[in-house]
Amino acid sequence: MPTSTETDGQYGAPQRGPDPRAARSRAAALAAAQELLVEEGWSAVTHVAVAARSGVGRTTLYRHWPDAAELIRDAIALRIAGAHTAPTGDLREDLVRELEGLRALLHDPVSETGLRAVIERAGADPVFAELKESLYRNGSKVFREVLDGAKLRGGLPADLETDRAIDELAGPLMYRRLLAGRAFDGRYVRQVVDDFLRAHAAR
Amino acid sequence: MPTSTETDGQYGAPQRGPDPRAARSRAAALAAAQELLVEEGWSAVTHVAVAARSGVGRTTLYRHWPDAAELIRDAIALRIAGAHTAPTGDLREDLVRELEGLRALLHDPVSETGLRAVIERAGADPVFAELKESLYRNGSKVFREVLDGAKLRGGLPADLETDRAIDELAGPLMYRRLLAGRAFDGRYVRQVVDDFLRAHAAR
Repeated sequence: MPTSTETDGQYGAPQRGPDPRAARSRAAALAAAQELLVEEGWSAVTHVAVAARSGVGRTTLYRHWPDAAELIRDAIALRIAGAHTAPTGDLREDLVRELEGLRALLHDPVSETGLRAVIERAGADPVFAELKESLYRNGSKVFREVLDGAKLRGGLPADLETDRAIDELAGPLMYRRLLAGRAFDGRYVRQVVDDFLRAHAAR
Repeated sequence: MPTSTETDGQYGAPQRGPDPRAARSRAAALAAAQELLVEEGWSAVTHVAVAARSGVGRTTLYRHWPDAAELIRDAIALRIAGAHTAPTGDLREDLVRELEGLRALLHDPVSETGLRAVIERAGADPVFAELKESLYRNGSKVFREVLDGAKLRGGLPADLETDRAIDELAGPLMYRRLLAGRAFDGRYVRQVVDDFLRAHAAR
């Protein structure tokens, strides 16, 4: 990587036009950060280690990510945000689809390790606290829409607490993956949804 | 703390008799490690920081805990193991009591931070991987007894998967505390148990 990259990166600031060298450096740095995160956890993602692995100069890294936590945030934020689909109105189908998004997140090495890092660091580091907050808000948004819609239409009891319902849907997947350390497939997801509906679907 | 403590600690080895100075040093070191863990996370629990805070010499710390991960393990292992009670045979009561143990663990600063550290470090550090394994085994043992007993006695369907049942009981609590970042009380625990029983109790 030419040393000129050191002086012309414009990753964070509003850009006058796309700068392909800056974009390549940014991508290389974030890819190196993802690898280090997966291999050794967040504490291995330092400016020195990312520079050594990516070939991007430390000066450039420090300029764009003064704090290593911001570098980790950018390395995982897109992967961890997950893809959400628009609810169809079919309660079971909509819940299965949202949980399938969570299943994918929990089985992708970068987003899974990122989630573990977020859970650990949120208490001590404001960058991670904010990331956890937006992750939770984002991750529960479609569930909230789906559940509240079903309560309005009578598919779920009107007095069901939406927050607890989300815990009962997402919690088992998190527990199985992060605590029990086990993988699971679409069959497991459908069983969790069916158990949830057996407990709550309007009788 | 007298410097003689440096040479006579016998924390790990079989003891000829109790050594009150060694016991005091050990307790001081573990208390300092717990404080650092709660304040800043596992990465702040270094030999240097624990020595500075506890007054126990670094040589002593290194002799008994060559790896900082072992120091953290000993600082959280007892707190995180939790108290389990013997099942009474009343399914709802037994599930509520076990989940109350998990609720206590999730609301104690040391064990909660310890659990977050275990979740993050298990992938990268064998000391934490082992701790997570024993934590999971231990934490699910009584659930397993209670659920398998109820399946035998006909209170739960014989074909209910015990592992998924545990995910559905413990997962919501973990999710609410570690992801949503919210506290909860005994009412929440009973609701999770009642939802579980509504989904599964033999009809």
